[in-house]
Amino acid sequence: MARLLYDLAGADPNLRFSPYCWRTKLALAHKGLAVETVPWRFTDWNIIAFSGQGRVPVLVDGGRTVSDSWAIATYLEEAYPERPSLFGAPDAIGVTRFVNAWADTVLQVAMVGLVVSDIAKIIHDKDKAYFRESREKRFGKPLEQVTAGREDRVEAFRAQLLPLRHTLSAQPYLAGDAPAYADYIVFGSFQWARCVSAFELLAPDDVVSDWRERMLGLFDGLARSAPCAAAA
Amino acid sequence: MARLLYDLAGADPNLRFSPYCWRTKLALAHKGLAVETVPWRFTDWNIIAFSGQGRVPVLVDGGRTVSDSWAIATYLEEAYPERPSLFGAPDAIGVTRFVNAWADTVLQVAMVGLVVSDIAKIIHDKDKAYFRESREKRFGKPLEQVTAGREDRVEAFRAQLLPLRHTLSAQPYLAGDAPAYADYIVFGSFQWARCVSAFELLAPDDVVSDWRERMLGLFDGLARSAPCAAAA
Repeated sequence: MARLLYDLAGADPNLRFSPYCWRTKLALAHKGLAVETVPWRFTDWNIIAFSGQGRVPVLVDGGRTVSDSWAIATYLEEAYPERPSLFGAPDAIGVTRFVNAWADTVLQVAMVGLVVSDIAKIIHDKDKAYFRESREKRFGKPLEQVTAGREDRVEAFRAQLLPLRHTLSAQPYLAGDAPAYADYIVFGSFQWARCVSAFELLAPDDVVSDWRERMLGLFDGLARSAPCAAAA
Repeated sequence: MARLLYDLAGADPNLRFSPYCWRTKLALAHKGLAVETVPWRFTDWNIIAFSGQGRVPVLVDGGRTVSDSWAIATYLEEAYPERPSLFGAPDAIGVTRFVNAWADTVLQVAMVGLVVSDIAKIIHDKDKAYFRESREKRFGKPLEQVTAGREDRVEAFRAQLLPLRHTLSAQPYLAGDAPAYADYIVFGSFQWARCVSAFELLAPDDVVSDWRERMLGLFDGLARSAPCAAAA
């Protein structure tokens, strides 16, 4: 039975931009597990209704269905203990959850205000009304107004990356000497931004930028070779 | 040879309030290592000159001198491998560094603006001019102006704790099922605030508050039994 991952796609079915799906794709690569990805759009709720919820990533692994990127990561760690540990060690899962919480509640929130109007351009026609309506309701204004003046706000965004910068000044990866799930969590957001927008989030002399380069090269350039707006 | 820790003290030599020294004291307790603490004041630079720098914590362990709380934690993990791991596992050190960086660059920075004027009241007379001058230079205004209106700003502070709140909604400690250095790092800041100020940082129904209670009780109430302004 093939291993399947439902993976958020744009109008171009090869443009895969969900930060949470990127966490999962890098986790699968870390474990050396092959996967077939299925392009999925925001409004394809019926297609993943079998998972009991309406968001991707959804992983179908043999007879098992797991949704939510964190649940998938801990599932993979448990189901494939003989493969390289996703967390470095089982005892690192707890503290890695803090990185997950920081990425979800700080990093994503800061980044979306810089790129959300670009997402509206690359998604499938059938998703456009849903996406604009749900996000404009959340922000309380048109998406173009959310990102307006982002050139002036990018420095404030970069200041919020200070915990990353401190960590990556002392060690090459968030997880230490080698990449692990903490890195995939945070990199998922940078890859998302890169896939949907040509707007540059990082200064070239930032250690976070050097780390992003290293992450792009992992697993034979899995993330770098993916179709992306930034690469266009 | 006794194990010595130079530990920041107030006018009352029993009032020990440095967040970084609290990280170290809890780390030593976690390892089950006895320590004699030496009260030290901000301007006692000559007393720790042997360490090659001017801040505490400074640990003297047998013939070895180590300063900086992070360096002390990794030193203890390496020097006492047969004792309970401070990080859960050696492979969790890397990702714990991110928690350290977050506490140093986000948590401490947010907290100091709510309590710094109270610190000025509890420190030793000989430290007062140095403390006020150095901190007022940093903030660009009198310390009383820095904390003025803190009742109105405490909600914004609590919002910055969202990564903690998410993590502690899912597990009892930042490190997972049991406390480890990630917890001591973050708790050090809460204990610092509690030692110097009666101003309440947390809402009583916050999971972070529940966690703080659990932390206060560790090691036979090591932190709870310490003299503190909050307990006055």
